[in-house]
Amino acid sequence: MRSPIPDYLAEALSSVEADQSGATADYIPELASADPNRLAAALCTEDGRLYSQGDVDAAFSIQSISKPFVYALALADRGFDEVLAKVSVEPSGDAFNDLSLEPETGRPLNPMINAGAITTHTLAGPRGATPQERGDRIIDGLSAFAGRRLEVDDAVFSSEISTAYRNRALANLLRANDIIEEDPLVAVSGYTRQCSLLVTVEDLALMAATLANRGVNPRTGRPVVPAAVVRQTLSVMATCGMYDGAGDWMTRVGIPAKSGVAGGLIGALPGQAGIATFSPRLDVRGNSVRGVALFERFTSDMGMHLMEVPPPGPSVVRSRRVFGHGRLAVEVVSLQGSIRFAGAERVLRDLEETPPTQKRFAISLIRVGSIGDVARRMLLEAIARLTLDGHDLYLIDPDGVLPDPDPGDGGRVTVVGRREDIVG
Amino acid sequence: MRSPIPDYLAEALSSVEADQSGATADYIPELASADPNRLAAALCTEDGRLYSQGDVDAAFSIQSISKPFVYALALADRGFDEVLAKVSVEPSGDAFNDLSLEPETGRPLNPMINAGAITTHTLAGPRGATPQERGDRIIDGLSAFAGRRLEVDDAVFSSEISTAYRNRALANLLRANDIIEEDPLVAVSGYTRQCSLLVTVEDLALMAATLANRGVNPRTGRPVVPAAVVRQTLSVMATCGMYDGAGDWMTRVGIPAKSGVAGGLIGALPGQAGIATFSPRLDVRGNSVRGVALFERFTSDMGMHLMEVPPPGPSVVRSRRVFGHGRLAVEVVSLQGSIRFAGAERVLRDLEETPPTQKRFAISLIRVGSIGDVARRMLLEAIARLTLDGHDLYLIDPDGVLPDPDPGDGGRVTVVGRREDIVG
Amino acid sequence: MRSPIPDYLAEALSSVEADQSGATADYIPELASADPNRLAAALCTEDGRLYSQGDVDAAFSIQSISKPFVYALALADRGFDEVLAKVSVEPSGDAFNDLSLEPETGRPLNPMINAGAITTHTLAGPRGATPQERGDRIIDGLSAFAGRRLEVDDAVFSSEISTAYRNRALANLLRANDIIEEDPLVAVSGYTRQCSLLVTVEDLALMAATLANRGVNPRTGRPVVPAAVVRQTLSVMATCGMYDGAGDWMTRVGIPAKSGVAGGLIGALPGQAGIATFSPRLDVRGNSVRGVALFERFTSDMGMHLMEVPPPGPSVVRSRRVFGHGRLAVEVVSLQGSIRFAGAERVLRDLEETPPTQKRFAISLIRVGSIGDVARRMLLEAIARLTLDGHDLYLIDPDGVLPDPDPGDGGRVTVVGRREDIVG
Amino acid sequence: MRSPIPDYLAEALSSVEADQSGATADYIPELASADPNRLAAALCTEDGRLYSQGDVDAAFSIQSISKPFVYALALADRGFDEVLAKVSVEPSGDAFNDLSLEPETGRPLNPMINAGAITTHTLAGPRGATPQERGDRIIDGLSAFAGRRLEVDDAVFSSEISTAYRNRALANLLRANDIIEEDPLVAVSGYTRQCSLLVTVEDLALMAATLANRGVNPRTGRPVVPAAVVRQTLSVMATCGMYDGAGDWMTRVGIPAKSGVAGGLIGALPGQAGIATFSPRLDVRGNSVRGVALFERFTSDMGMHLMEVPPPGPSVVRSRRVFGHGRLAVEVVSLQGSIRFAGAERVLRDLEETPPTQKRFAISLIRVGSIGDVARRMLLEAIARLTLDGHDLYLIDPDGVLPDPDPGDGGRVTVVGRREDIVG
Repeated sequence: MRSPIPDYLAEALSSVEADQSGATADYIPELASADPNRLAAALCTEDGRLYSQGDVDAAFSIQSISKPFVYALALADRGFDEVLAKVSVEPSGDAFNDLSLEPETGRPLNPMINAGAITTHTLAGPRGATPQERGDRIIDGLSAFAGRRLEVDDAVFSSEISTAYRNRALANLLRANDIIEEDPLVAVSGYTRQCSLLVTVEDLALMAATLANRGVNPRTGRPVVPAAVVRQTLSVMATCGMYDGAGDWMTRVGIPAKSGVAGGLIGALPGQAGIATFSPRLDVRGNSVRGVALFERFTSDMGMHLMEVPPPGPSVVRSRRVFGHGRLAVEVVSLQGSIRFAGAERVLRDLEETPPTQKRFAISLIRVGSIGDVARRMLLEAIARLTLDGHDLYLIDPDGVLPDPDPGDGGRVTVVGRREDIVG
Repeated sequence: MRSPIPDYLAEALSSVEADQSGATADYIPELASADPNRLAAALCTEDGRLYSQGDVDAAFSIQSISKPFVYALALADRGFDEVLAKVSVEPSGDAFNDLSLEPETGRPLNPMINAGAITTHTLAGPRGATPQERGDRIIDGLSAFAGRRLEVDDAVFSSEISTAYRNRALANLLRANDIIEEDPLVAVSGYTRQCSLLVTVEDLALMAATLANRGVNPRTGRPVVPAAVVRQTLSVMATCGMYDGAGDWMTRVGIPAKSGVAGGLIGALPGQAGIATFSPRLDVRGNSVRGVALFERFTSDMGMHLMEVPPPGPSVVRSRRVFGHGRLAVEVVSLQGSIRFAGAERVLRDLEETPPTQKRFAISLIRVGSIGDVARRMLLEAIARLTLDGHDLYLIDPDGVLPDPDPGDGGRVTVVGRREDIVG
Repeated sequence: MRSPIPDYLAEALSSVEADQSGATADYIPELASADPNRLAAALCTEDGRLYSQGDVDAAFSIQSISKPFVYALALADRGFDEVLAKVSVEPSGDAFNDLSLEPETGRPLNPMINAGAITTHTLAGPRGATPQERGDRIIDGLSAFAGRRLEVDDAVFSSEISTAYRNRALANLLRANDIIEEDPLVAVSGYTRQCSLLVTVEDLALMAATLANRGVNPRTGRPVVPAAVVRQTLSVMATCGMYDGAGDWMTRVGIPAKSGVAGGLIGALPGQAGIATFSPRLDVRGNSVRGVALFERFTSDMGMHLMEVPPPGPSVVRSRRVFGHGRLAVEVVSLQGSIRFAGAERVLRDLEETPPTQKRFAISLIRVGSIGDVARRMLLEAIARLTLDGHDLYLIDPDGVLPDPDPGDGGRVTVVGRREDIVG
Repeated sequence: MRSPIPDYLAEALSSVEADQSGATADYIPELASADPNRLAAALCTEDGRLYSQGDVDAAFSIQSISKPFVYALALADRGFDEVLAKVSVEPSGDAFNDLSLEPETGRPLNPMINAGAITTHTLAGPRGATPQERGDRIIDGLSAFAGRRLEVDDAVFSSEISTAYRNRALANLLRANDIIEEDPLVAVSGYTRQCSLLVTVEDLALMAATLANRGVNPRTGRPVVPAAVVRQTLSVMATCGMYDGAGDWMTRVGIPAKSGVAGGLIGALPGQAGIATFSPRLDVRGNSVRGVALFERFTSDMGMHLMEVPPPGPSVVRSRRVFGHGRLAVEVVSLQGSIRFAGAERVLRDLEETPPTQKRFAISLIRVGSIGDVARRMLLEAIARLTLDGHDLYLIDPDGVLPDPDPGDGGRVTVVGRREDIVG
């Protein structure tokens, strides 16, 4: 069987292909001359399977899509406090080249606008790193997100740096406000180099998938940034990633995303996939016209909107029965599905409303796919409380779905692999 | 066993109880005189189970927490186009009493600021409704969210309306810009009445749970607003709900929320629960000090941040084995867990990489908790393609996890309840 | 001889008559229906001679031109401190319907924008006056400026008040900020009534001439407001009178001015004349198109720009000669022209550089037109110093150009009418 | 006799000497270390007499006081159109380091803010001048205003240029907006050099006096810039010279002024004098604390407020009498004072109301100090009309107060030196 996903992607591309609206960025000569008709899309699953269609080999500069990744590197390298002291996380509601500095502090409003991104650039790598070392750190880091060695496009870099007056203005303002501590021109040069890294749509999908996969590159298996950093980065992408259309994007597409002026666009679907598109013509907000159309279609077709409430699954408590007789009798509650807070609450409620009828009581996790951390703690608390109520507790968990099953303080539980192990 | 959740809530309340910082709203006399020490929290699950602790019987005015609910009513009553033509969905980045009107159109930036909420108020109910009818529609609608009849606090209403100069100013500006079409004083009066509805923390938790439950009140079972309206409402709460701290809230708490000046605060955890707190002292942004602290704790304890990527569960493909022999042999792929896009993709990939070895091929959904809509369509597409490849397809689905299993165009599948039904 | 001034005015009107650009204010129905072709100009000299041409009998509503006059009344009635505490004097740089309130205080930026004018309206008349009394005070006051009884145009008032949503918004904001202390609707109603006073271009010229004449109506001779109030009012007109084109107006026309939305425009040439034009079509800034053109022509033709430095006149010291012989000899310094600071300085310098040669020394003011207050004090100081140096001083001042000639402290001077009175 | 003016200045200085409030600019190291107690004042009359008191020899950097003078040079060198196309003339209402660029064009709001001054700097000298040539032009030009060769303070220049991040930001923004056309660092360097010119309070008084004297240096007699340029420069100083306190300054002091961050402050009293003060401690707006106090005192003592209406002088028509008899009789109207528009209007009115009784009619200018250009044209028009009415006209003008007395088109007049020349 051939997977239908490539067909789906190809069909999606052809549905937007005719749209020639928008224009390539004209303020960077090298971008203005790019072929505006190129079109590509890629999707990389949480475990690294890559689907792509269209101009998948076309390399283009990453531009602003580097921002969330370098922000993640800065958070990882310097810690949240140091980075937040220099760059806030509030949506700017303004165009991408607005200054957007906080009135009192001069702090950029968020790391997705240029002022914030230049600042973030200076915070990557260890304190005291030379510009060269920091540049290497950023290329290494972004390459780790992409799973292959990325290279700078010197022609784009030269083209941009020669007209980067606005970014130089921002860097000088940041220096005047003591937000950055180094020579503004050095910062702009490094930032422009970061933006000039060449990527393909597949690279971007894999980079997004690394975010969707808690910071671990799903193809190389290499951890790039910690999960807490990913959470922060995705949050900022969700509220600030799409320039002045943050609310519009959140309502219509509903996933953390970031666009670049060369035509790239990425979205991260936490726990599921990274998606990327490439189409150079931009709308007035600076986002790829056909890229936005593709994401609107993806969100509609794939139901990936973060605020899309999934339909309720079957009850987490699949059955509750007593096996055996007399002193050897054991009551078994059989759970199913993926259990997070709400599922664990149902289990606890069930146990409260219908207390165990037998001294021996087992919780079967055979049909449970996964247990979230809070659900695990809630179940262990239930085990502890039932122990205190005088019960002998068993956990039927052949796959180790509930790791480290220590109910703590007064609780006690015996883990077995099969129901047969405990049924008298 | 007594459920640990009430204990958890009680413990959470006591952990913030000592914090006396902030102040009650002083610009509304009736609120300024409220007992600032009251403290309560409530949690209502997606299926209507309510947990609460603290001053759960204290009634207070709903104030701005009415905004998302009336926005939802307006969307339901007038449709997206009419509402979006009058109120945008962009974060304002400004304080709660800022004007925040779009420069060109005079359209309020979003429905969570006062200008947007006054406009939204005038859009509830059918076009042409009298102010009285509209007021009734709003009280009926909010009561439906809460699952009980809500009443206006006339003392609060009188107190607020007598000093509502800023809201009158906003309403007059909206009228000057043709955003609202009626007498500004009538609009302000109706809006102030809406804000004066009395609620308890349990009401709020249930109202939030109705949003978390796709618009269906989980206790009454009554549909209040359509799912698409809920998605829009939650999106706007996520980006605009917490005044000028939208980014701060999104990074630190990470769920759609709304606060009110009387001290209420709600959050909706889509598909899981509605949460509410009540504590009258406000921070400089106008949000309840202890309410924010409680939500920060909840998000940390319960892992409810929207950008928190869940740890990967076990593979959705639990096993793949051949049963029986010869022409009666059937290859069974056994799936498990809750299957959404990413899970379905794994199944498809597995089928592509390792094509079926037998003519007869079965997909077992026995251990599957739920299947999302996109996943369902992907699995049906796989069934259709395998049919076209010459296979006879079976679906082992005793619980009807995959409804309406018609693979369409050329596909064919036989649904059975047990593997034994098809194993020769 | 027929005065050439009427011819000049007629010629000026005909030079702009063909310009049909601009549009009447469309947001006030009564103004939108006014005849847009009407055109008039009037000039009233400091001593009350009125020249006018064109539609001099056309009555139109005074609108914003009432602002400087009511500001003057408020300053006169309440004092500078009370008025400045409520309304600042800074140019807003914004359009005429901008809010333009100071961020911290909520104080309107100046009395020429609507927010400031509404506030100023509430400050006219004595503290504690009823709205009726205040309205009477304003009509009386503006009538005193005009030299005849002005009447409200009820049709314009009704037309404006029914759509005055923006002004109501402003008044409510001002009330919310405690800038005004009364019911916002009462303030707006009173302000709108003030704006509905009917005037002709001749009325406006006379009102402006009253400002140019230190606050005294040059026709009735009645003092309307004190000179210090006039100075303040003219200063504010100079920097804030022409909406967002303050700098443009100052550079190109260079006199204190104010325009009204009904098509009126006034300018005050301190110490010389008041000028007014009437032409209803407005430019995008809300100023009369042909009115602005006329003032540009007037300033160019009449050299009335405040920054136009007059060419230097002849030396204030016309001659210095000794008359008579021996003990009866007297040295006479003969002054000429209008003497202000610079002229007095020249006299003092002359006396310092060339000390008197005779014991008897006379200052002849026969050819002196006027002496400013500071110049008077400087000359008296010179007289005192020369007395101390041992001289006998005489002032030849047949017309009493130097009033109250007491040199004070040690000085002594004899005033005579003719040189012959002292020449031996 | 010793002139009382130095005593007056000394007394004024001592009246403010005790005020130690404010602080020296701390963002420029070289300025922060200046002696904050220095205090000086100087006044230069329109004809070059200089009075000064205090630390008159203290040299300090001119800083922003260079702005109006370089603006004047740019207007003179490039013309109004080219300069206005790049820099507007509107007050910014903002602090001195605000960006204050027009939203659409990116044009600085006025030449007195840094963005405008950097732009103006690049417009001095002929188009195509090298930075070196332009720098020389500016030093030459400012030296011509001062009447002596000014020198750059290299220590101040080095100190400022090393921390000029904000100005570099502005220059880069201006370059990004195509307002300046050269390398931003070159522009900032040149501008900083301009600001580093060393001056004394006497230099500044003379520079201001050159503006007050229609652009001609009153000591060297050298024309520096044309009168139209002076008018434009003074207008901009009046509305934009004192940072965000333009309205406050205009109402309280009322003369065109400019302050510098090193403590200098100048004011130009058109046609009378230039005034300068020096005191390094600045208020929060960046203006010299004691400088502002001195100017407030000067304006009050010297009546130099532009909106101060002078008291009316005696009638311009001193007498009207018939001399001689029969055909040789001549009617003589004797004028007096300085005649501008208003005075000429009185003469014309007099002639209209009381037509000449004799065929021979003379206008005596013996007692007239000066006649403005518009007044001159009005008198000539009267002469022309009287000629047409059949009169023989004579002008008694021994001092040539009315130059080029050609009434044109049909008019005819005979100029004589004495009345006796025409009386039969």
